[in-house]
Amino acid sequence: MAKNFTTKEDNYSQWYNDIVKKADLAENSAVRGCMVIKPHGYAIWEKMQNALDNMFKETGHSNAYFPLFIPKSFLSREASHVEGFAKECAVVTHYRLINNPDGEGVIVDPTAKLEEELIVRPTSETIIWDTYRNWIQSYRDLPVLCNQWANVVRWEMRTRLFLRTAEFLWQEGHTAHATREEAIEETETMLGVYADFAEKFMAIPVIKGLKTVNERFAGAEETYCIEALMQDGKALQAGTSHFLGQNFAKAFDVKFSNKENVLDYVWATSWGVSTRLIGALIMTHSDNNGLVLPPKLAPIQVVIIPIYKSEDELNAIAEKIHPLMKQLKTKGISVKYDDDDARRSGWKFNEYELKGVPVRVVIGPRDLENNVAEVARRDTFEKVQLSLENLDIKIEELLEDIQNNLFKKALQFREENTSMIDTWEEFEKTLDEKGGFIYAHWDGTNETEELIKEKTKATIRCIPLDNPMEEGKCILTGKPSKQRVIFARAY
Amino acid sequence: MAKNFTTKEDNYSQWYNDIVKKADLAENSAVRGCMVIKPHGYAIWEKMQNALDNMFKETGHSNAYFPLFIPKSFLSREASHVEGFAKECAVVTHYRLINNPDGEGVIVDPTAKLEEELIVRPTSETIIWDTYRNWIQSYRDLPVLCNQWANVVRWEMRTRLFLRTAEFLWQEGHTAHATREEAIEETETMLGVYADFAEKFMAIPVIKGLKTVNERFAGAEETYCIEALMQDGKALQAGTSHFLGQNFAKAFDVKFSNKENVLDYVWATSWGVSTRLIGALIMTHSDNNGLVLPPKLAPIQVVIIPIYKSEDELNAIAEKIHPLMKQLKTKGISVKYDDDDARRSGWKFNEYELKGVPVRVVIGPRDLENNVAEVARRDTFEKVQLSLENLDIKIEELLEDIQNNLFKKALQFREENTSMIDTWEEFEKTLDEKGGFIYAHWDGTNETEELIKEKTKATIRCIPLDNPMEEGKCILTGKPSKQRVIFARAY
Repeated sequence: MAKNFTTKEDNYSQWYNDIVKKADLAENSAVRGCMVIKPHGYAIWEKMQNALDNMFKETGHSNAYFPLFIPKSFLSREASHVEGFAKECAVVTHYRLINNPDGEGVIVDPTAKLEEELIVRPTSETIIWDTYRNWIQSYRDLPVLCNQWANVVRWEMRTRLFLRTAEFLWQEGHTAHATREEAIEETETMLGVYADFAEKFMAIPVIKGLKTVNERFAGAEETYCIEALMQDGKALQAGTSHFLGQNFAKAFDVKFSNKENVLDYVWATSWGVSTRLIGALIMTHSDNNGLVLPPKLAPIQVVIIPIYKSEDELNAIAEKIHPLMKQLKTKGISVKYDDDDARRSGWKFNEYELKGVPVRVVIGPRDLENNVAEVARRDTFEKVQLSLENLDIKIEELLEDIQNNLFKKALQFREENTSMIDTWEEFEKTLDEKGGFIYAHWDGTNETEELIKEKTKATIRCIPLDNPMEEGKCILTGKPSKQRVIFARAY
Repeated sequence: MAKNFTTKEDNYSQWYNDIVKKADLAENSAVRGCMVIKPHGYAIWEKMQNALDNMFKETGHSNAYFPLFIPKSFLSREASHVEGFAKECAVVTHYRLINNPDGEGVIVDPTAKLEEELIVRPTSETIIWDTYRNWIQSYRDLPVLCNQWANVVRWEMRTRLFLRTAEFLWQEGHTAHATREEAIEETETMLGVYADFAEKFMAIPVIKGLKTVNERFAGAEETYCIEALMQDGKALQAGTSHFLGQNFAKAFDVKFSNKENVLDYVWATSWGVSTRLIGALIMTHSDNNGLVLPPKLAPIQVVIIPIYKSEDELNAIAEKIHPLMKQLKTKGISVKYDDDDARRSGWKFNEYELKGVPVRVVIGPRDLENNVAEVARRDTFEKVQLSLENLDIKIEELLEDIQNNLFKKALQFREENTSMIDTWEEFEKTLDEKGGFIYAHWDGTNETEELIKEKTKATIRCIPLDNPMEEGKCILTGKPSKQRVIFARAY
């Protein structure tokens, strides 16, 4: 089953690149760090958007749209926000091009300089809170529960398709509340939405936790996250939800009069997930034969391939397959019937395997005689002959089984790659030889966290929510600790 | 029914601004020319996107995503394209900010200058055809049928919410074909999709036609368009579909080997509609009481308002209304039950009228006794008492009736405001006194078209498809003409 690409075992990073390329998900563009998301990759993103958007709406949120550009001065309003975001970013300085008076092409018109530079949004807290000032006067105007689907730009130096690109697509929720408690509740609710989405749709088990002060979002009082473990033992932050306190309300002067008619600053949250999730999807389920997709996010869930020699045979198959197609569609299952004459069936098998179609149905003239079809599942490569009778029901069950199996496998992998470590020697050894999540004690200081990162490249992924308290000694300094935190090398 | 805003008759332009503001559709942002699309406005856009996206997919298209930025030199590759687009645009020149060494805030890092400036896409032909070069080698790779939902930026000097903004949201289809004929067929198919969408969803009658050479898209061989007539007698271009010939394939060297194994340049189309359509929607149906929405694009199709004095009364109503809500939802009708205690029912009536909710159901204790409700339609203000028995079916019919009625009214308006004009004097008079679409003869030259525009501000909106041939004399020059074209002042 060699696919002419690098195996995971040989070079995980190259394997990842090969999958992205061969499954037609994305590619680099002529613009440094900006990717082209190809139709198959974008179709997966659409499935993700759809599921998330429904969950956002069920929890009371509406979509809106805010400007792409942020006035430079806005970034400086919130002191720690500017440190985090006003660094590597795309800066618009001019608004006109003119024909080159000295030759070919066009040049920037030097007279068309903006009075204040505009930044292409790296995240939208500032422009949104500048807007909210006009939306919010009284407690009656609260909560404001907005989400935005948008592109953002962060001028990353080292980019990788989906995982880290200069431009990426994401959603960013921005909510405004009357009380601290309500804002914290919102932050936690949205973390729960992300965790549900990751586990139920992406089939990726995640750990919910809090970031350390070092790893907090610039401008947040508390950053919640979900952390997943990739097949190579590295962690990936799959989503974050921030409790922003009154920081942005103070920076943009957003006050409301409460029920007692007293003016107070508004409480804020923000939360986001991005096209990075497609990277997480690949690195959780895929194999040396290509992409493996959980059925709930597969643009094509079932492909049906006819095997035939004559047109008569093809017609006989088509006639038999037509009602099955209809039944599957009625069940909301997306199915493709590929009778393209220009490609051999071997090529098709390979292609749909590469692209991660969960179920393949093959039917030839002899199958037709016996009223059966060969049904293969992408996750385990198991093949069975099944009667065409009620095949739609069996396929539906099979899709559910694949979805569950992928989650189970990923969960088992994570359990096998989670270690409880108590000595520095073991800590370093585990990181180098096994990787994975390491539960270890930490003395709670920024300095130690930084030092561990310097020595090992491992970071604290999170302090799990509902973490059991346990007395212990910091893995590095030996100082007392009250709970274990999760360390890992990460994407 | 005074709503405390300008009437259409007093000042159409101010009326438009008031509607956008009071119906909570959009507002200006802190960034010149960039709008904030508020949740109600964005919800309408989502309905539009959804309907269009389904139509694109039914006609075989897939979504993809291309970079926000375009290298400056790309714009110069296609000679007429650069004239049209490389003028007023947002130019990214730097990629880093640093703390201001001389004081507060951040400044652009002078050392972080891009080697080549990047333009924020005003349209994506160039970056997409640069990408297609790697996708297309053989006729087997064709057609490529991609669409992108994206934001674009054109540095407009005079902006109006939805109608003309520096940043706007749109979709842009970009397709590649093996033959001229196939590309032209695609261009016409997509024009048909736009016309269907305008008429069936937006309830806006449109005329399909061709643009004159002057009004063509920069880089197109032929621009098809749909033209609508607004309530103030001005035209609005509601969508365009371009046959691009081999211009972009030549500019970006995109060749394919055909079935005979001969290399040839690829044929192209592009087509788009934008958030401008929300402006068209407003200016076609709305009235002095606020927004009027065709049911198929209304985020809330039915609002139910209980009238009550005691909690018991409210509970009795809620109990009765619950099954109706369920029935409506089963029918796919979006319904809101507004029992918010903080607002009076008069305020609610006003609010939902302003926001264009097509059907309002009011129910009080006496109605409950009689098993009836008051049902009001937004388009005609008609109110009827209807039995709660099978009310879901009656509401469904009513929504359909409103949808049809809005289209009929708009069509009647257009017919009443369409003139056949044969003399210059009448032409000028009609433009000034009546407006609307004017069918008149034109000698077919750019010069005359320009002169008419200078003299009257009227432009040729289109040469209608399937235009009947008719000998005549040019309205301005008296030179011979073979067919009438449509003139109007336009947005």
